[in-house]
Amino acid sequence: MSRVAYVNGRYRRHSEARVSVEDRGFQFADGVYEVIAIDNGRFVDELPHLDRWDRSIAALRLPAAMGRTAMRRVMAEMMAQNRVRQGILYLQLTRGQARRDAPFPRQSRPSLVMTCRRQPPPSEEQVQAGAAVLSVPEIRWQRCDVKSVALLPNVLAKQKAREAGAFEAWFTRESDGVVTEGGSTNAFIVDGGGRLVTHPATNAILGGITRDRVIALARAVGIIVEERPFTLEEAKSAREAFLTSTTTGVYPIVRIDDASVANGKPGGRTLALSGHYRTFSATGAMPS
Amino acid sequence: MSRVAYVNGRYRRHSEARVSVEDRGFQFADGVYEVIAIDNGRFVDELPHLDRWDRSIAALRLPAAMGRTAMRRVMAEMMAQNRVRQGILYLQLTRGQARRDAPFPRQSRPSLVMTCRRQPPPSEEQVQAGAAVLSVPEIRWQRCDVKSVALLPNVLAKQKAREAGAFEAWFTRESDGVVTEGGSTNAFIVDGGGRLVTHPATNAILGGITRDRVIALARAVGIIVEERPFTLEEAKSAREAFLTSTTTGVYPIVRIDDASVANGKPGGRTLALSGHYRTFSATGAMPS
Repeated sequence: MSRVAYVNGRYRRHSEARVSVEDRGFQFADGVYEVIAIDNGRFVDELPHLDRWDRSIAALRLPAAMGRTAMRRVMAEMMAQNRVRQGILYLQLTRGQARRDAPFPRQSRPSLVMTCRRQPPPSEEQVQAGAAVLSVPEIRWQRCDVKSVALLPNVLAKQKAREAGAFEAWFTRESDGVVTEGGSTNAFIVDGGGRLVTHPATNAILGGITRDRVIALARAVGIIVEERPFTLEEAKSAREAFLTSTTTGVYPIVRIDDASVANGKPGGRTLALSGHYRTFSATGAMPS
Repeated sequence: MSRVAYVNGRYRRHSEARVSVEDRGFQFADGVYEVIAIDNGRFVDELPHLDRWDRSIAALRLPAAMGRTAMRRVMAEMMAQNRVRQGILYLQLTRGQARRDAPFPRQSRPSLVMTCRRQPPPSEEQVQAGAAVLSVPEIRWQRCDVKSVALLPNVLAKQKAREAGAFEAWFTRESDGVVTEGGSTNAFIVDGGGRLVTHPATNAILGGITRDRVIALARAVGIIVEERPFTLEEAKSAREAFLTSTTTGVYPIVRIDDASVANGKPGGRTLALSGHYRTFSATGAMPS
């Protein structure tokens, strides 16, 4: 079965899904995106993702392509046409095609693109093995709260991590040693008191939907969560560490640069939250 | 006559010049660009532009699409097919089409795109009227020296300037008041001693080809040039101010935020350099 993409009102074969070379997404990174997980044939946290999508659109003052009801219809159609029960839906909205000039065009029709693909979450073995992260200097712009496609710094950081044999890069501010977030994931540690610690959702990070969900899951099972900055040094001596994202769920971190986290095995709270998240993802159920 | 674009080895009608929705330029801003002026049927400073193009490609470790000789042949063909004697050539190279994943794909064929259009330089009347600039907070990433297509901060800054009735935005660092550069131009002032002052070509700015040319022109006519940071306050009380870029040449600034620069008219050194640049652009001749 060939994959189907949605481009500006039409369902197209993936190989024929194209945009103009003067699309402002291509020339100016003038657009936003979302990645929504599909689990068990359902979108995971669909409404929080669409709320964030709306916030991104408002932040860049992009013209809206369609209302939410129509969006959700297209999204469901994409899932169905691509026959994905476990995977991801990718949405991108740009300011559309216009004669190249940096300020907003006086008139433009936004470009709305969706793709969909099968992709399993990390396997039980992968979760049990955990991941390494590599700290990299935080050099990004000061509006990381906008989920824009201006992802070049993230690309370079994640490539650097991969070349160092790490799964993810942790952006670390040189001025104060604070870990803001990963290249495409949020960063959590468990402190000596068993509390979760993660950077607050300021302009310095993209507040993840999975991050929010994991905070809610933790609180539902009685874990205290502190949204405050933590440093790389604090993380290296933390009891546990993990990352969260739409595509990874709760993923244990067992190594930070050259330091093992605790005994180098996924921590207990991390694995418990990973399980809770999997249940939520598959069924929508919160722990009781 | 319909415009012709070059896309990965083919000359296409502009309206049919397209890239995949999974081009990494569209999804990740994973690409670089150049804009080269065409004056009198010649490329202006062609080789310095191509040298910078090569540096951008190296900085992002993009795969090269073709060697310089072939590039220059395509560039000349674009100028000819579009019959442009006064205008601009736009070049963009991205890491190409790949299944969406942030790190570099193990294999990808880069996307090389060129467009070309007629566009006159600012008229004599525009130059005599001068332009206003609006200061905006410097919030960009710390690799502004790479001419990447991750231009969203520039888009937002230039849009803000336009809405304030200004021609350009000046990125101004909040910590020390330093003006780094404009949204798509370099910033110059003339100090009380008649010296040109412009931010050094560090990671904080994109070192313009026109900037370099104007520095060389100034020195050729005996003007002292200091490459050092200057503040917004210094600029507001400067004797003259101007901006430079491929599309504007040397363009006088007569207002910064609510302050007139000097008497609110283009300065003498600015107008002299504007003239020298026009001559250089049209003929390649440096002042003797």
